[in-house]
Order: sequence, then structure tokens, then C-alpha cells
Amino acid sequence: MRRSFWAWGWEERLPDEAARGALGHQVSAALGVAPPEARPLPTVDQAVARVPAPTVAPPRAIADLCDSSPEARLRHAYGRAYRDLVRGFGCDFSAAPDFVCLPRSEEDVSRALDACAHAGIAVAPYGGGTSVVGGVEAGGRGRPACSLDLSRLSRVLEVDDVSRAARIQAGALGPDLEAQLRPHGLTLRHFPQSFEFSTLGGWIATRAGGHFATLFTRIDELVESVRMITPAGVWATRRLPSSGAGPSPDRLALGSEGILGVVTEAWVRLHPHPRFRASANVSFSDVLAGARAARAIAQSGLHPANCRLLDPTEALLNGVGDQAVLLLAFESSDHPLEPWMSRALAIAADAGGACPRGPSYRDAGEKAREGESARWREAFFAAPYLQSALVPLGIIADTFETACTWDRFEDLHARVRADMTDGLRRVCGAGTLTCRFTHVYPDGPAPYFTFLGPARRGSELSQWAELKAAASEAVLGAGGTITHHHAVGRTHRPWYDRERPEPFAAALRAAKRQLDPAGILNPGVLVD
Amino acid sequence: MRRSFWAWGWEERLPDEAARGALGHQVSAALGVAPPEARPLPTVDQAVARVPAPTVAPPRAIADLCDSSPEARLRHAYGRAYRDLVRGFGCDFSAAPDFVCLPRSEEDVSRALDACAHAGIAVAPYGGGTSVVGGVEAGGRGRPACSLDLSRLSRVLEVDDVSRAARIQAGALGPDLEAQLRPHGLTLRHFPQSFEFSTLGGWIATRAGGHFATLFTRIDELVESVRMITPAGVWATRRLPSSGAGPSPDRLALGSEGILGVVTEAWVRLHPHPRFRASANVSFSDVLAGARAARAIAQSGLHPANCRLLDPTEALLNGVGDQAVLLLAFESSDHPLEPWMSRALAIAADAGGACPRGPSYRDAGEKAREGESARWREAFFAAPYLQSALVPLGIIADTFETACTWDRFEDLHARVRADMTDGLRRVCGAGTLTCRFTHVYPDGPAPYFTFLGPARRGSELSQWAELKAAASEAVLGAGGTITHHHAVGRTHRPWYDRERPEPFAAALRAAKRQLDPAGILNPGVLVD
Repeated sequence: MRRSFWAWGWEERLPDEAARGALGHQVSAALGVAPPEARPLPTVDQAVARVPAPTVAPPRAIADLCDSSPEARLRHAYGRAYRDLVRGFGCDFSAAPDFVCLPRSEEDVSRALDACAHAGIAVAPYGGGTSVVGGVEAGGRGRPACSLDLSRLSRVLEVDDVSRAARIQAGALGPDLEAQLRPHGLTLRHFPQSFEFSTLGGWIATRAGGHFATLFTRIDELVESVRMITPAGVWATRRLPSSGAGPSPDRLALGSEGILGVVTEAWVRLHPHPRFRASANVSFSDVLAGARAARAIAQSGLHPANCRLLDPTEALLNGVGDQAVLLLAFESSDHPLEPWMSRALAIAADAGGACPRGPSYRDAGEKAREGESARWREAFFAAPYLQSALVPLGIIADTFETACTWDRFEDLHARVRADMTDGLRRVCGAGTLTCRFTHVYPDGPAPYFTFLGPARRGSELSQWAELKAAASEAVLGAGGTITHHHAVGRTHRPWYDRERPEPFAAALRAAKRQLDPAGILNPGVLVD
Repeated sequence: MRRSFWAWGWEERLPDEAARGALGHQVSAALGVAPPEARPLPTVDQAVARVPAPTVAPPRAIADLCDSSPEARLRHAYGRAYRDLVRGFGCDFSAAPDFVCLPRSEEDVSRALDACAHAGIAVAPYGGGTSVVGGVEAGGRGRPACSLDLSRLSRVLEVDDVSRAARIQAGALGPDLEAQLRPHGLTLRHFPQSFEFSTLGGWIATRAGGHFATLFTRIDELVESVRMITPAGVWATRRLPSSGAGPSPDRLALGSEGILGVVTEAWVRLHPHPRFRASANVSFSDVLAGARAARAIAQSGLHPANCRLLDPTEALLNGVGDQAVLLLAFESSDHPLEPWMSRALAIAADAGGACPRGPSYRDAGEKAREGESARWREAFFAAPYLQSALVPLGIIADTFETACTWDRFEDLHARVRADMTDGLRRVCGAGTLTCRFTHVYPDGPAPYFTFLGPARRGSELSQWAELKAAASEAVLGAGGTITHHHAVGRTHRPWYDRERPEPFAAALRAAKRQLDPAGILNPGVLVD
């Protein structure tokens, strides 16, 4: 299989022309607009013809590691945000880097940083290229740029099955590292939606959130130690379950988005594969009642693996009824889960939830991955393909996400709904917005919104920018964070700058100047 | 009640002369040395007479907030490390600050930082003064020094019972903040051993560990947002359950030990009081077998509130038998705990544990705090008084702690035991070392060691320094951290400098220079 040069994931997995046509009819009917006219997909040859000439050649010291071909450059131009898809679909590769560098070792990474610092070339670390916030977009900024692709550093180097941890290279993609861990009977179980195409290093640099709704689901909690190559030397932390020795160095590397150094490997915490599973769907009369149930369960100390609230439209799209629904699941490699699930269902019932079909339990002997949770999982990983498929149809489709404390959620939900409904009407003439919770904490949820609206051909990017601004203002104004797990990149910068304390920004800039005095690392991200 | 000016806690709670005599006989018998001759306790008058004259007066702009009396100064000279006790007992207050500043508001804190920066006066934030690592020792460094005492900022300002969180001022002592939360039916349940005399701000600045053995027990996990006054402005983070917007500002404030700013308040996560409790003591033939059980339980996903392994000597001292024992407990405000405890006991039995008396369960109706867990709790909070009582007897008594991954624990335990046994013989002629786990993580334990040895009068500090170095070398050499929850302060600096990555140290120094350009904040701590 081959990665699409402009769309999400595998070229073959993008819905074909007929499927896109059907999708266009379905979406236009839902939006109450005329069915869109589909445009043909671009070819690699068309794209290659449009890549601007490079402004510099790779420095001699790293020439052996570099690829300056137009195709390599265009394939590293963008992440997979809506605006990346639109630009890629339109064969606008003006932000392509001047060359791609593919290090085979940490020494190569150091050599690349040295050579680029010496030549004044910007360096954007590139993991799987799935950023939805412009995090890997190195070129097109009036400065020579190198995309530093970590894909050759993809091995599981060491497994400690006593402490349940492994040392893994940063360029390992989700499925690759899981395949290498499988013989050891262990798994990282970190399943962001980008899982198939994103890397351990990318997860660390962006503080990725995993699939699990509670407890140890963020990569932050799964990292035991980090190795990061900075222009000022190797940032290597000690493997520790926890430490109180000063501010945590790992927590400064986590979320640093490539501005302080290049993550090359990490020790991460693993689990055995789950043996016991329990799942149930609980329906609610409205999404706010469901949110109260999700809160009570998040505060119960039961720690479900899934506690994902879908609003009625999301439920409909996912084939789990037409009411708000709470997808509940527990999993364990150690113990049967009836007491956990029974108590969670009792809490949900107290909050007005109905679970007519009752919970289902599975032991290891039974076939896993069947039924609703497997359908959910498949739909979860398929969603980005649908977003890509809407681009040729001229439909704006994007998601945004946040986290807030529970006391603020109802207001935030109302404000986002009002402002985006208004924004979609104003900007697109029509549109729809849905909401779900991706994660729940004892003190608040992580709401995740999806919006769709018909675009005017040629104005997609400006329309999208207007909607993105409306969404970001609503989220920030209602007390949320500009991002719970999509990172900051270049897209969220204006709102990130308002969210973070100014003395912290000053400290981060000072740290960056110290570690990257030539200012080559991922310019425009997090700081200037 | 009145705080002792040199010993731990309340003056009245220090064992009296008779009790100290009995303790001396008990310890000397255990060590196989002659019973020590007790020295009389110093009086405040003796101490006041020995305080050096101040080198500067408080700057005029903050004179109204300051106390330059000898007693105020000597009471803020030290924390409560063994070496602080020895110096205080000997009325050596050469490290007393020149004055104590007691702000009543954030504005006062800013004013104090401005005035001291202008006058070149070092400022050490002072919470409860319980540091065991020289974290609050501002004076005696050849530079005028101010102790910034946060005790007037001690209020719970706001409670959000929906999200279960409260905004609390940094100077609130453990019992004070719990008393203010009680009417709301909520509790922070953060019980470090210093609980009665330490503050929220101190816990945050030092990344304190709570009493609970697993899950949300470190203050790091309990902090929702922080306000910190830096010389460069207010560092105020947004209240959020979680965020992925860049590296976490809170995690840079956590553990900053007063070098970047003064924590003035924080939103922290709360719980309802537990309604259900389950507890059991499980015995093992040796401490390593117990450690294997603790590991299996830490990796089970059961999340006990207590999973504290005591070696045979610790068990004996705590009246729970003469074998290694694992103190297991669960608590919940939501659900009965039989399934949790039953499974944990089954895991412990698989690892060779015996629990002849079985588990005990308590509901809210029954009297809480009885039996072994209450005895443990009382002994836990009394231990620092015993350490103080040993000082007049000429017994060196101290503790050190670390964390390491499970694969390294057996080696670390053996190395610490060998090196400290050897060190105590060499330095003291005799001695004893015990070990327990204070916390357990899926990937490793936090071992906590206590050592005792007879001192030569007048040589206590040099003997202690030799033992501390041996302990620190052993811990670091075996792959542990120099501190899991005691912080770095001035005592752990040499080993901390070796533990942290040099690029992180450079980044921290750069951040410090940016926020504290006059270099007044807690000099000597974490960085130079």
C-alpha cells in the first residue's frame, strides 16, 4: 500500500469516486444544500510539476542522508489538517521544504542539526506527518528549510518485562512498535486517532492523547524517560517511575513540538494485553444528562477504559441510536470486571441513563474486537479518510477539541454551539456541529467537536480560517484550553499565546535561545 | 501549643526527659552500644543570645511587613533536616536570615520581591519550614537574606463542588486547609509526613508525595492551576483538567523550589471523604518476596490506597510482627471494596504472602481510624518527633528515599544495605538501616530508608555528611533518583546535578535568569 501524497493515510483506503458521490449526497442532504460537484483527484505527476525549485542544496556534511527530489519534498510539505488537505488537493506545495534529511542514528541527527545551524537552515522534525496544527510545515517561510524525517529510527531497542517498559526509537509508527512488542506479550495501548501513521516521537513532542478515556492515556503518563538531541547536546533523562528532583525534565520535553530538540528515543510504560473486557451503551434524554453521568463516573474512582459521550448526531452517525449515548467499557489483564461495570451502570442509571441491552462481558477465550466497540474502533480510525474524501466535494470538514472543568462545561458547550452555528450560517450558509467527549477527568471533560459546511470553491481556506477563529475564540472565552491533544503548532499560536502565562512564555523563549542559539528548530511553533 | 524553635513540631509533643531516657536505652541496646548520656534541651533565651546581628535592615518599602527580632530570625533559620536539628539544638543560628517578611497579599509579595531585588537581598520562600534538604536556609551565605513567610496567606478562597476543586492560598498548613474544606464535604487527602506543619505552597514547590501508595498521591497530580509571583510578573495558569498546549507551565512550577517565583495560590483537586475502607496485613518470608507481591499489585490496575512494604525491622518497630509485611488498604467514597481487596490478597498469596487474620472492611457508619491503619498513621506522624528526641541523646537518625524501576530494585536494595552497613560501621562504629516502600508505581517502587548510629559529640555534622554521601552515591549508582519526594534543596545539589541532563540544567538556568534577573530567589537551590 502507498501513502496518499495529499489525503489521509493509504491511497487505496480513500473512498472511491462512487463512495465519494454517495457521501456527497448524504452530507448535502443533512446540510440542506444542493449536492456538490465532485472534482477529480490530483495525481503525483501534477503535484510534482507544481513543487517550487529548492532554494538551497543539502549541506555537504549530510548530503548522504538527504533527498531533494520533488516527490520527497512535497510529501513532507504538510501535515493532515483540513488546510493541508485543501492545499495538497490543489497541488499547492509552496511550503515544501528544500530537502528531506533521513538520519539513521542519533549521530546523524546531531550532524544534521550542526550542519543546518551552520548554514542557517530551519529544521522541522517529521514523525508520521499527521499534524493537524501545522506542526511539521517547515518551508514557505522565506528561509531555507529541512524536514528531518525520523522514519529510519523505528526499532524497539530493549524490553524490560519486569518493570513493563521498553526503549523505543522515536520514528516507530504505532503499528510497528506494537508488532515489535507483541512477542513480549506487552503493549503500549496508546491509540490516538492517528495511530497507524504517527510515531512515538511525534506523540511525545505533541503530548498526544490515547484512545482510553481515563487514567494513563496521555503519552505524558506513559513516558519513563526521554532522549532528545538538542543543538546544545544530548538531553537524556534517567529511567524512573517517578522523581521529585526539581521540575521534571521529561515534562519540558513533552509538548516541546520540536523547538528544543529532536526526540530520538524514549522508555515507555507497557501493559500486558487485556484479558477481560466489559462494555455497555447507556442512552440519555440529552447530552447534558449524559455529561452529568460521565462526570459522576469520572469521579467514582472506577477508571473506565472508555467513557465516551456522544451527542445524538454523533450517536446516529456511529450507528448507536438517535439519543445521546455514553459508551462505557472496562478492560483488565488481571481481573474480571463485573463489579466495576455494575457500579458504573448504577451511577449512570442514577443520572437518568438507560441500558436496555445490559452490559456485555468477554474473557480472553472469546473472540475480541467484535460488536460495538470494534465497530467504534474501525469508525474511529476511518474518520480521517472521510474528512479527506469531503475535500474534492467542496465540503469543509474539521474538528477541534478542548478540555475544561466540569463547572464550565455546560456554558462552554452552549457557547461553542451558538457561535459555531452562527459562524457556519454566516461563512457557509449552512452547516452542522456535533460533540463528543474523548476523555474524562475527575475535574472535567475533554469535549471534541466536528463541524461540516459547504465551501465556496476557491475560498475554502479563508472560510475555514474564519470558522477556526470562531471556534477558538469560543473555546478560550468559555474557559477551555486551545488544545487538549492536537498540539499548538502554527495554527493554534494566537490563542496559545493568550492562554499561557507570559512569564512562562519568557522562560520557554530563554530555554529555547539557550538550547538552539541559531534558532533553527521548527521556527514559528510555540515561540518566535 | 507552641512550635519548638529547634525540634520537630510542637514543643509539648517532644518526648520528655524520661521518655528520651527510655528511648536512649532502647536504641543503644538495639545498636549494641553503651546507653548515651542525654544533654539538656536548649532554651529560646539561650538561642536568642546566639543569633548573629543582622547585616541589613528590611528595605523601607516593606518595613511594615517585616520582623527583625532575633526570635523570628532564628525560627526561620532552618528546616527540619537532621543537620538543622543538630545546629538548632546547639544554638548555632549562623544561617539565620536578616529579617522575616510576612506578606498579607500577592501585592505584598510583589513589593517584597521588588524591594529585595533593588537592594540585592536574597529571598527564600518559607512555607511551614519543614524542609529536610536545606530548602529554606536563606542566610549564612555571605549575602543579606530575607525569609519570605507565607503564613498569612492561608485561606481557602473558593470551592467548586461540581468539579471537586478549590482555590487555596499557598501558606495554608495541611490541617488548616482540611478544616476549611470540611464544611464542603471535601478533602485534599494529601498527607505527607510533614502534613501538620507544611503548606500547600511548599508541597507544590517541592513536588511533595502524599500518604497514598498509588495513583493520585503526588501534589503534581492534584494541581489544577498555579499562581506564582515572579520578579518578571504573575505566572498564572488556567484551571484545566488537562491540556496539550505546549509543555505544561504547571509542571515547570512544580518542583521549582522557590527559584523561579513564589507560589501564592493554586486550584487543587479534591475528593469526598472516603466512605468505604478495606485493609489487610500480609506477611512474607523476606522483603524481596514482599517486593514481588507489591510489584504484582502495583501492576494489577487495582490502585490500592496503601501498599506499603515494611522490612522485618520496620515491622517490629511498628508493632506488626517480625516478618516483612505488606500493609494493604483500599478506600472509596463510592463503592464497597471487597472485589478489590479479594483480588489483591489473591495476588499477594500467589507471591507467597500470608494473611492469617484476613481483611477487615469498614463502612462509614463504623468508627473510622481504629485498629492498625490508625496506629500506623499516628506512628507515621510521630516519627519526626522521635528523630528530634534522638539528637540530645547523641544518636544520628535520618532517612533517605528514592525511586527506581522494578528491574533495578533488588540491586539497589543490596547496594544501599551493603554501603550503609559499611558506612555506619566506619563512621559510627555501629548502626542500623531499615527499608520500606512509601509508594509503588506499575514500573517501580519508592524505597525509603531509615538509619541510626551513635554519634561522637561535636562530630555529628561531619559524620552525618559522610553517611549522607554514602547513601546518595549508592542510590544514584544503582539507578535511583536522588529524591522521590524530599526535594533537592541545598543538600541534594551535588547528586541532582549529576542526575539531570545538562541541557535541561542549561534551560533551567536560562529560565531563571529571565524571570529573576537579579538572582535573588533562593540562591544555591537547584541552580547557581
